[in-house]
Amino acid sequence: MENRIHNFNPGPAALPLPVLEKIKDSFLNYQSTGMSITEISHRSKPFDDIINDAKLRTKRLLNIGDNFDVLFIQGGASLQFTMVPMNFLNDNGIADYVNTGTWSTKAIKEVNTLGKKVHVAGSSEDKNFSYIPKQLELSDDAAYVHITSNNTIKGTQWHEFPDTKGVPIISDMSSDMLSRPLDIQNFGLIYAGAQKNLGPAGVCMVIIRKDMLEKVPSNLPSMLKYTTFSDKNSLYNTPPCFAIYCVQLVLEWLEETIGGLEKIHDINVQKANMLYDLMSDDGFYRGTAQPDSRSLMNVTFRLPSEDLEKQFVSKALENGLGGLKGHRSVGGCRASIYNACDMKSIETLVDFMKTFEKKNG
Amino acid sequence: MENRIHNFNPGPAALPLPVLEKIKDSFLNYQSTGMSITEISHRSKPFDDIINDAKLRTKRLLNIGDNFDVLFIQGGASLQFTMVPMNFLNDNGIADYVNTGTWSTKAIKEVNTLGKKVHVAGSSEDKNFSYIPKQLELSDDAAYVHITSNNTIKGTQWHEFPDTKGVPIISDMSSDMLSRPLDIQNFGLIYAGAQKNLGPAGVCMVIIRKDMLEKVPSNLPSMLKYTTFSDKNSLYNTPPCFAIYCVQLVLEWLEETIGGLEKIHDINVQKANMLYDLMSDDGFYRGTAQPDSRSLMNVTFRLPSEDLEKQFVSKALENGLGGLKGHRSVGGCRASIYNACDMKSIETLVDFMKTFEKKNG
Repeated sequence: MENRIHNFNPGPAALPLPVLEKIKDSFLNYQSTGMSITEISHRSKPFDDIINDAKLRTKRLLNIGDNFDVLFIQGGASLQFTMVPMNFLNDNGIADYVNTGTWSTKAIKEVNTLGKKVHVAGSSEDKNFSYIPKQLELSDDAAYVHITSNNTIKGTQWHEFPDTKGVPIISDMSSDMLSRPLDIQNFGLIYAGAQKNLGPAGVCMVIIRKDMLEKVPSNLPSMLKYTTFSDKNSLYNTPPCFAIYCVQLVLEWLEETIGGLEKIHDINVQKANMLYDLMSDDGFYRGTAQPDSRSLMNVTFRLPSEDLEKQFVSKALENGLGGLKGHRSVGGCRASIYNACDMKSIETLVDFMKTFEKKNG
Repeated sequence: MENRIHNFNPGPAALPLPVLEKIKDSFLNYQSTGMSITEISHRSKPFDDIINDAKLRTKRLLNIGDNFDVLFIQGGASLQFTMVPMNFLNDNGIADYVNTGTWSTKAIKEVNTLGKKVHVAGSSEDKNFSYIPKQLELSDDAAYVHITSNNTIKGTQWHEFPDTKGVPIISDMSSDMLSRPLDIQNFGLIYAGAQKNLGPAGVCMVIIRKDMLEKVPSNLPSMLKYTTFSDKNSLYNTPPCFAIYCVQLVLEWLEETIGGLEKIHDINVQKANMLYDLMSDDGFYRGTAQPDSRSLMNVTFRLPSEDLEKQFVSKALENGLGGLKGHRSVGGCRASIYNACDMKSIETLVDFMKTFEKKNG
């Protein structure tokens, strides 16, 4: 029996234990190839089967057809911040961005760096990004509308997506990808660094509506245009094979063990509510996000003092509960409870929080 | 006992078995963190120790000081084909490229795509890239001279590097990085996709001479400029943690088990010679590279007929020898014998080749 902790890390984050066990068991000899998964060719049938299965499962989970393609790209969401405007925003165009926190701000910065035009169509900066803006001022002629569906650091999440009148929505979904059902038809592209809900760090899943591919300029560097990845099944050059393999196993777990996105969403709602139920405006635990914007993935909260927050985090770790410190830029506490964080971990955390409050409240 | 094969894959390629065993053994609980290496934070002490140890070992192995930095970047060598000219070649400048095969050709293409100027200072295209050009026509004012130190597909390798009169050499060393001692002082930058000599696919090691960092334009996208990676110890965004961890273990093995670059070079020379000794211009096995340009990493050869080559590859696999098919673009046979391919594998291959020749020669 391995002595594992309850892992509330914001990312890289917990992975399903059955997935980790499967990787371990076959690590020296993947499917009788006589090689480790880290040693097999990306041009081999075993790897083709992995990447194709990952794509198929993603499409089935999201209930999408052949008008979307699933790509695997390196560089994380941070490279997508640049690739999106390089591919879809021409020098005379404008893109609408909604600023809901650190990652949106970084995405906007990269458009500016390219010398291209951004219109900030909404922002919650006035209240320290503690909510999702309801009213957006969309441009008439935006190339796309960019949002961040879940804000890992501020603990907020879009629960309804804006009506953009046919302008494609592009969303950074790094921290809530495949955590709930999604009507993807209004999205031109969604992207997600794998290391929260999908797998280990080192690969970014991109789901692109195929009409968007027609907008990609031909004169971009090969590794920075979506068409390269779409034309070559993400195998233009050697892909991050191990990370894609892990993603495939996580998707298999999500589909076959959990039972799909509605099921995982029910579980995620239940998990988050168990934690939010401990919080109130004037209580020992105070949630930092406005209730109607609360994230189901990252539960952010404060205690009565920074000293108590420090004690909370270190006592929790002593009790086998890791990763509860808030992001260094905002302080406080945060429980990241992605798909792979199971009910047992939440129950253990709830018990600990009640005990800690009793002793210190 | 795992039933593993002798792996001659060109990349992803064999990894040292002790490294794989170490990864497997600690996979569910890395160094008593209670988490898998795929689940720990990139901002944690355990991961800091990994990345810092990998950098230190690289510097010790190459005997380089603080005027070089070691970076870990995603996107493989193919992204470096673009990043190099973006960072070091301005719109009015020119860069010298030596064309020694498929990968050099791709590197040149990416400079052209950016609308920047390339001078091809040497090429072996006239003889199907079967040799390394001795005479180069270098520009007077090149920003850098780009070479491909080892050509995986054509089986050639630079054994002496050109005198560029102080112009920084930039080299794609994907397929011979850390396979031999290197006097790095004349190199401004070297880069290597990990999946041949360094680790699994998913990370590219870049070693940059620090004066080169001063040439990087400030207005590049964050993820495409070397200064971002140098300023943030390759932790600007979430790095490919697992791949870097594997690289660290491979470096540890190279330093502590093998004993460094002179030792591995001796072994690599011995390994390659055992195979080249079976070849002659008019024999059953004919090496495709000119003898003075032969690679110590990728031994390319032909048999008397394509039919025999097919039989050779399939019979070899039946005998537990995998990955011997030549690259799809050139045909023939190829044994990729990177650092992790051990003497036992070479001996087994030599025996097989002798037997196969006896039966079919």
